[in-house]
Amino acid sequence: MAASIKDVAKEAGVSIATVSRVLNDVDVVNEETKRKVVEAINKLGYRPNIIARSLKTQRTKTVGIVIPDISNQFYPEIVRGAEDVANIYDYNIMLCNTDLDFEKEMEYLRVLKEKMVDGVLYMSASLEPSILELIKQLQFPMVLVETANKAGDIPSVTIDNEKAAFDGVKYLIDKGNKKIAYIGVHEDEANANALRYIGYKNALKENGIEVNTNITYFGGLKAKDGYKGMSKILDNDDNIDSVFCCSDEVAMGAINALRDRNINVPEDVDVIGFGNIYSASIFYPKITTVAQPMYDMGSVGMRMLIKMINKQPTDSKSYVLDYKLIERDSCKK
Amino acid sequence: MAASIKDVAKEAGVSIATVSRVLNDVDVVNEETKRKVVEAINKLGYRPNIIARSLKTQRTKTVGIVIPDISNQFYPEIVRGAEDVANIYDYNIMLCNTDLDFEKEMEYLRVLKEKMVDGVLYMSASLEPSILELIKQLQFPMVLVETANKAGDIPSVTIDNEKAAFDGVKYLIDKGNKKIAYIGVHEDEANANALRYIGYKNALKENGIEVNTNITYFGGLKAKDGYKGMSKILDNDDNIDSVFCCSDEVAMGAINALRDRNINVPEDVDVIGFGNIYSASIFYPKITTVAQPMYDMGSVGMRMLIKMINKQPTDSKSYVLDYKLIERDSCKK
Repeated sequence: MAASIKDVAKEAGVSIATVSRVLNDVDVVNEETKRKVVEAINKLGYRPNIIARSLKTQRTKTVGIVIPDISNQFYPEIVRGAEDVANIYDYNIMLCNTDLDFEKEMEYLRVLKEKMVDGVLYMSASLEPSILELIKQLQFPMVLVETANKAGDIPSVTIDNEKAAFDGVKYLIDKGNKKIAYIGVHEDEANANALRYIGYKNALKENGIEVNTNITYFGGLKAKDGYKGMSKILDNDDNIDSVFCCSDEVAMGAINALRDRNINVPEDVDVIGFGNIYSASIFYPKITTVAQPMYDMGSVGMRMLIKMINKQPTDSKSYVLDYKLIERDSCKK
Repeated sequence: MAASIKDVAKEAGVSIATVSRVLNDVDVVNEETKRKVVEAINKLGYRPNIIARSLKTQRTKTVGIVIPDISNQFYPEIVRGAEDVANIYDYNIMLCNTDLDFEKEMEYLRVLKEKMVDGVLYMSASLEPSILELIKQLQFPMVLVETANKAGDIPSVTIDNEKAAFDGVKYLIDKGNKKIAYIGVHEDEANANALRYIGYKNALKENGIEVNTNITYFGGLKAKDGYKGMSKILDNDDNIDSVFCCSDEVAMGAINALRDRNINVPEDVDVIGFGNIYSASIFYPKITTVAQPMYDMGSVGMRMLIKMINKQPTDSKSYVLDYKLIERDSCKK
């Protein structure tokens, strides 16, 4: 038979109300009494009924994490960073995969509200007006990770995608490259990845290189997209000297496509990726990449979210974290 | 202002008790009345307070998933398979990363019980007696994925690891290989991976090959373990003709170590992996591997768990799923 709050009160020689005060941290209890209660709790192995308490406090110590797809290599590290911080503060995470399906995103947000999660960490490629409307309506603390909304009224953790892409392309230009292909997302998409195309174009312009649509490809961010994009570009023009890829998986697919045509990386063509997923460092050749601090994006986002839940001041409404260029073996030395 | 159960009753022209019966599916309500209630619910956008209902029904429609580490490439697909099935049945998942830390495993199980999850999908390398004791004590429906406990009293979803490894090694032998290195987990470890070493030894024995401890290495299952293991083995004896690896990441690390010594895969040495994680198919060379049906392990496990939660009969106490050997480019044709 599990110990009840009554048993704890008896053991500690205090009232049930006092035990409740200690448990809920709602009122001043003197240190000595607090110590006695905690000792009694530990001795009896008492575990409060969290669900019943949730109804009273309107807190569940659970937060939702809404992501496109955990089996996409980009997200596990973000989720891991978020869960590690949640764990420190005694929060648990509810994980939801949306596949960027708009209906699924809406439904998950509603379900999370019903299940009374205390807040949501939200990763989505796009932020449709109706999603933003729903978010406002549901009124829970929310932090966007990777994507920021244009109005800027929802706190977010991102990197400066435009500048990061600019620097990646600049790196290729500094190596003497002039015909730089692009495989990734078009600027018209309303998401973080799209900013990278703007960065790409700006870097070319600033260095007097014209954008050549024969050597740009817009698609998804998986290895198969990289393979397909690279193949199409080479069909148009096989005289490129380098490729900027919007993700490391795209870079891997592109390198495989080049290899299948006996074009060597980096001897013939430099390839740069984006993200720095784990496999980028064990791929052959090891991939030079613009590294996003994925674990940190998750942990900073979760820390900010928990502060918001507890109505503590946050240092900033939005965090723009640092990226860095990691030189490996897919570009010439 | 959100609609209440009262509003729904009024709109449908029935009693609150009737709405409650429809919501909880506890009693016979005639179809016509049910239809009216459902229409009223939809019209008003009524969302029942799930937490309050959980207290009454002792159900939260939430299940825990306890895994070692979501950022290990092996787990995301299992979790994805599990969540997809959970989603179909209107369950949500609470994700817990344990790093195989015994204390963390115990603590998560206790917290999940407190948060009244309806059941747990459990992945752990080892099943210590005290964990098994706690599991019994907590009395929630549980399904083990990847690992089975020896007593067999907890339902599980696995593959036949011993036979799968046997077949993998046999494949190398059939290619004419005789000096087959092993990089993975020792048979003394109490987990699924350890069974693979037994399969390795049996395959050698049955083909008249002696186990040579100079060319076996026991460590972790990450790429760095593969690199380290391969390097140590080559220091002992660089005359091997093939390598059996306990995971695809180990195979990638091993291939990189071979490449760094100018040993070509598969021309000089055949390498076979285990698992069939996504990167195995885009690595260079593409990795021949013993494929575990990871997505299916998660989805079958979750389906079984939900049946147990709802006290429905399951077809089997434990599922042993099929593996298959996928031939790619890391072994000679």
